[in-house]
Amino acid sequence: MEKINVAVLGATGTVGQKFILLLQNHPYFEVRELVASERSAGKPYAEACSWKQDVPIPANLAELRVKSTEEHLKSHILFSGLDSSVAGTVESRYAADGHVVISNSSNHRMDPQVPLVIPEINPDHFRLIHSQKHKGAIVTNPNCSTIFLTMAIAPLQRHFGVEAVNVTTLQAISGAGYPGVPSLDILGNVVPLIGGEEEKMETEPLKILGALSGEEIEPVSMKISAQCNRVPVYDGHTETLSVKLRGAPDLTEIRRVLSDFSGLPQELSLPSAPQRPILVLDDPDRPQPARDSWLQKGMATVIGRLRPCPVLDIKMVILGHNTIRGAAGAAVLNAEAMVRMGYLKNGKQFPKIDARLFAEPLPVESR
Amino acid sequence: MEKINVAVLGATGTVGQKFILLLQNHPYFEVRELVASERSAGKPYAEACSWKQDVPIPANLAELRVKSTEEHLKSHILFSGLDSSVAGTVESRYAADGHVVISNSSNHRMDPQVPLVIPEINPDHFRLIHSQKHKGAIVTNPNCSTIFLTMAIAPLQRHFGVEAVNVTTLQAISGAGYPGVPSLDILGNVVPLIGGEEEKMETEPLKILGALSGEEIEPVSMKISAQCNRVPVYDGHTETLSVKLRGAPDLTEIRRVLSDFSGLPQELSLPSAPQRPILVLDDPDRPQPARDSWLQKGMATVIGRLRPCPVLDIKMVILGHNTIRGAAGAAVLNAEAMVRMGYLKNGKQFPKIDARLFAEPLPVESR
Amino acid sequence: MEKINVAVLGATGTVGQKFILLLQNHPYFEVRELVASERSAGKPYAEACSWKQDVPIPANLAELRVKSTEEHLKSHILFSGLDSSVAGTVESRYAADGHVVISNSSNHRMDPQVPLVIPEINPDHFRLIHSQKHKGAIVTNPNCSTIFLTMAIAPLQRHFGVEAVNVTTLQAISGAGYPGVPSLDILGNVVPLIGGEEEKMETEPLKILGALSGEEIEPVSMKISAQCNRVPVYDGHTETLSVKLRGAPDLTEIRRVLSDFSGLPQELSLPSAPQRPILVLDDPDRPQPARDSWLQKGMATVIGRLRPCPVLDIKMVILGHNTIRGAAGAAVLNAEAMVRMGYLKNGKQFPKIDARLFAEPLPVESR
Amino acid sequence: MEKINVAVLGATGTVGQKFILLLQNHPYFEVRELVASERSAGKPYAEACSWKQDVPIPANLAELRVKSTEEHLKSHILFSGLDSSVAGTVESRYAADGHVVISNSSNHRMDPQVPLVIPEINPDHFRLIHSQKHKGAIVTNPNCSTIFLTMAIAPLQRHFGVEAVNVTTLQAISGAGYPGVPSLDILGNVVPLIGGEEEKMETEPLKILGALSGEEIEPVSMKISAQCNRVPVYDGHTETLSVKLRGAPDLTEIRRVLSDFSGLPQELSLPSAPQRPILVLDDPDRPQPARDSWLQKGMATVIGRLRPCPVLDIKMVILGHNTIRGAAGAAVLNAEAMVRMGYLKNGKQFPKIDARLFAEPLPVESR
Repeated sequence: MEKINVAVLGATGTVGQKFILLLQNHPYFEVRELVASERSAGKPYAEACSWKQDVPIPANLAELRVKSTEEHLKSHILFSGLDSSVAGTVESRYAADGHVVISNSSNHRMDPQVPLVIPEINPDHFRLIHSQKHKGAIVTNPNCSTIFLTMAIAPLQRHFGVEAVNVTTLQAISGAGYPGVPSLDILGNVVPLIGGEEEKMETEPLKILGALSGEEIEPVSMKISAQCNRVPVYDGHTETLSVKLRGAPDLTEIRRVLSDFSGLPQELSLPSAPQRPILVLDDPDRPQPARDSWLQKGMATVIGRLRPCPVLDIKMVILGHNTIRGAAGAAVLNAEAMVRMGYLKNGKQFPKIDARLFAEPLPVESR
Repeated sequence: MEKINVAVLGATGTVGQKFILLLQNHPYFEVRELVASERSAGKPYAEACSWKQDVPIPANLAELRVKSTEEHLKSHILFSGLDSSVAGTVESRYAADGHVVISNSSNHRMDPQVPLVIPEINPDHFRLIHSQKHKGAIVTNPNCSTIFLTMAIAPLQRHFGVEAVNVTTLQAISGAGYPGVPSLDILGNVVPLIGGEEEKMETEPLKILGALSGEEIEPVSMKISAQCNRVPVYDGHTETLSVKLRGAPDLTEIRRVLSDFSGLPQELSLPSAPQRPILVLDDPDRPQPARDSWLQKGMATVIGRLRPCPVLDIKMVILGHNTIRGAAGAAVLNAEAMVRMGYLKNGKQFPKIDARLFAEPLPVESR
Repeated sequence: MEKINVAVLGATGTVGQKFILLLQNHPYFEVRELVASERSAGKPYAEACSWKQDVPIPANLAELRVKSTEEHLKSHILFSGLDSSVAGTVESRYAADGHVVISNSSNHRMDPQVPLVIPEINPDHFRLIHSQKHKGAIVTNPNCSTIFLTMAIAPLQRHFGVEAVNVTTLQAISGAGYPGVPSLDILGNVVPLIGGEEEKMETEPLKILGALSGEEIEPVSMKISAQCNRVPVYDGHTETLSVKLRGAPDLTEIRRVLSDFSGLPQELSLPSAPQRPILVLDDPDRPQPARDSWLQKGMATVIGRLRPCPVLDIKMVILGHNTIRGAAGAAVLNAEAMVRMGYLKNGKQFPKIDARLFAEPLPVESR
Repeated sequence: MEKINVAVLGATGTVGQKFILLLQNHPYFEVRELVASERSAGKPYAEACSWKQDVPIPANLAELRVKSTEEHLKSHILFSGLDSSVAGTVESRYAADGHVVISNSSNHRMDPQVPLVIPEINPDHFRLIHSQKHKGAIVTNPNCSTIFLTMAIAPLQRHFGVEAVNVTTLQAISGAGYPGVPSLDILGNVVPLIGGEEEKMETEPLKILGALSGEEIEPVSMKISAQCNRVPVYDGHTETLSVKLRGAPDLTEIRRVLSDFSGLPQELSLPSAPQRPILVLDDPDRPQPARDSWLQKGMATVIGRLRPCPVLDIKMVILGHNTIRGAAGAAVLNAEAMVRMGYLKNGKQFPKIDARLFAEPLPVESR
């Protein structure tokens, strides 16, 4: 299979850097263009970027000239890690120009025609792009904390029905980007506010778990209450959940349902798919962000301390790697699913994004 | 008023050290005896103790010979910060010998005849000591996280009724004593388990908020679900609460009820009493442990982010200084209340602890 | 004594906030004007400022309108915590206008006519201001790390002579201001570079320890080599020193010389003076920033682990509170010294800054 | 080549766990026995051990029964990560019984007949084992901080001669084992004392860099002064060095000599050898423990900020992974070198350790 050329929008930021890492030697995609703000434009990437990763900048990109978000791009597929202050208009413009924007930004997530997808859960929602007015399309993945939360409740919703969820997060500093959280605010401290995060966690899951009906998503009926905190942890968001179920399943059954959860990425063995999207640990003091965030290459949702809740029905602790499964990895997995479902095709075969690109998805056994 | 001689049990531990700090220049009490394990016994305090406080050991205690928990003590009043592995039997023995043990240890908290008191909430429960079989008595204060939780829900319970509480804690390392939490476990990490803590938080408030009926406490009927986490914070426990109320009060009224809360310590202006036991902050990102733990000399329960909860009724963030109001300060405040209520009297006047000591409390206006 | 009205330049920054704290209820000074950048100008201080201190903004300043650095000021004395990007020109302009600028900024420290003073060491250098071309004057205190270093070597220089000093610093994050060091850079990390810091440490002490000869400072001849590191500590700079002395004193004598060090602030009992400027600790694992930074209200230089050095002569660990003695407190102490030495006079008596202000200092016994 | 069966002494400790990780799928060695204290003996390893690594316990070892240090062992080669409180006698006993003990413990390092080896520097010192009275032998690697220090000065010593070194360390908590440093001592703090560490750093390099003359090591003549600090970093020791050289080389030449350094492990491409033992970085703010410790799989010594020193000749910052190159990895590399040099032979060929085992080393080109 010939690789599909892609661009990374917001390439100098923390999510952009993760895109570059995850797309290095990717079997489907080849990064050909790096796009950032006017301030970086024109410079070689290595110079424009304050690189914060453990491994060096891929050699083929270090000298690549950064383009500005005003420039015309050649790649059809654009991975966007743009800051939300600019993502809204930039992404819309590129989509209007015919590009398919696979975005991690929050701006368009709740737009009625924009798919908000976790491919283990609602890959059928990609179909929404047919109704977009753009020549191209915008596709989004959820907020980092939302992804782990939704991953944990999706199997419960599917098997038993979920009435309500109470969730408190303990979120890592890497979720705030760079320079992000000042050390004076977080060293030895907890900040009990992350702007906009609670609203996202309380609304995004309803769309993801909702049913596609015609050209619209009917959100699921479920109450979610979130309290979000920043803690002095580098990577890995921890969340404590209390869940009210519709049935009265026992813990053994719940544990099995969570542990057995699987979806399209696993069925198709997508390159970035975790072998098992949910890992249930039995050690009484796990999961822990410093020890368990990298399980399944950072693509797993790790669950522990499953037990009854005296107020709702069950409680548990969940954990995920916020900048991998919670951000860039989520977008890459979305793109991989779209390739295999027939939404995205090789640039050579389809010199421009047009109606043919948005073919009905291939029949997928698991759906 | 002549000062009452007191001993500190577990004097070399972290709670013991806080007792020594809080009792320095205390208007009611004078520390005369320091008691610790066999290993420390016989040594001068400064040598036996790995002192971890910001200020030096009080000069009059540095050279005081540490006694063992096997030794006979002269002080009637014993402040106990003993480790729970030994507190059970040692405290019982001293109480049987006629001492009044004001304990921060968990061992006897749930004993039916032992008062578990937050003096702003249930000072009438001290009366339980009349029913103890001991010649002396044991009095306890709640677990650190429980104190702040109960302080926050007591006014709500009193004014509206509380049906259920969901609470997640983010607890400081100082709560685990010394050496306590290994740095390898907590630096840049979260540990989602604190042994026994959730059980304490789910049961102790029911006793504290319960009604004294004859010689027994009838626990209040209320569902509590707790999830406890250790975070890399030095001092100050943060807790996120969701509360289901019986009525349907509006937030303004709730805020007022919390903010106006006051009790016996405030009425009597007890030496360690916070002027206001509950402080409600309006800044959207407060309270924070590194900034707000020392409000009211570490004796306040600080509340912020009061807002509606989509699942229960309201949610909020609470904070308190775990080793002050959450431990040694709670015990000292209990002892101060008992002095003023007539339970404790000057040693000279009452050469031995006997029935006369446990007089009915003085009439207190606020009760 | 009638209080002298003062302004704080850079009032919203971290040093400016410390000025406000240290000048609260000060016996000599009264803060009447708060000055900050154009962005803050016109707003009430409480609104313009992201207040990061443990205690609330002084009530009389919370509503004070912040002035811009372009505005005319009424106060004769200006405490400057301006950022070095603007301090150079702003301070010069105010000095030209007749104000006495007591600055913590680095811009003018090495100007030949500007005193760089630690009042325990070289208060005679204040006399340099007579040679300044300004109608007013500029006076500076050293860089934070330099202050503790110079304080430790000044008594050794005076008694034995110092040939060379090798110093490595472990500096707290609060030294970088706010937002300052991004948490992603320092949580669980060491950054072995602090821009410009090593140069300051290698040159400033030579001026401070130099001799005033006519209108010039003859720098002392001494080799200093510094290596500066940022570590994840909130407050308190630790420094390891190796020192080559001219004589061959024994450690007992060195310890005594350090411990006995005293100067003009102690002689005059200046309000901010530490009772003893140098504290020598004998515990083998002290000083530690989290435990010893606040000794003597944050105004002490704390020394420990004094021992022979196999390469130079002696080595030791020193510590000081970087935002108190290392910044705002140093400037306030300079101002207090100048008041008592006759350099500064009450505004009412001297309606404008003129020659009479810069009278020869009063004879001071200790000089 | 048939694999050599080995045992790990102190298998449950932090160094022992690293041995197990590094020996997993090792081309020369196969772990067959796990040895720990009486408390662990008899239990399956997974139960005896508080496993703290990022990856699970190797499946073939999880159920292996732990032996006590009193038991007879079958493996000829024993990797020792024993605590120094017991290593002295236990290692001697096993060596007397005919085992070759490859030890990371400090007890025997300075014994005249015990090789203290960094194989890039002094693999000829292995020959010392011929003079040991044991039927078997003891071989040691240096202290963690010593390894990086000696690695940095060895090429300078060889090319120019080194007269004196001043070194200050900023050491990670993982160097203290588990439970090790209490979090209350190190969170947001610096501890300026690591017991015995400075003595090791000041003496061990003299032996390593010394010349083997007959059956003795003549220590090199060089002055070293060390100041050791613990900082809140998880892995990676940072050290600031000032070095006085014999010649007057320029920085370019010094940089080249450091960067080009290579030895027997590189020549023989030993399995654990870093491709380049010294990496010189040019970024002005590197190396940093959180970013650069894992370079070359944790086996490199990383150097940065090479520049002139006003007191001695040059200064630099060095960094290494303390539990890999600084401990278990150092011992494994020693064992690999000994295999290839002919010191260790396959157990089958040599059913007991005898004189034939300690053959003269193979001629090695690079020595």
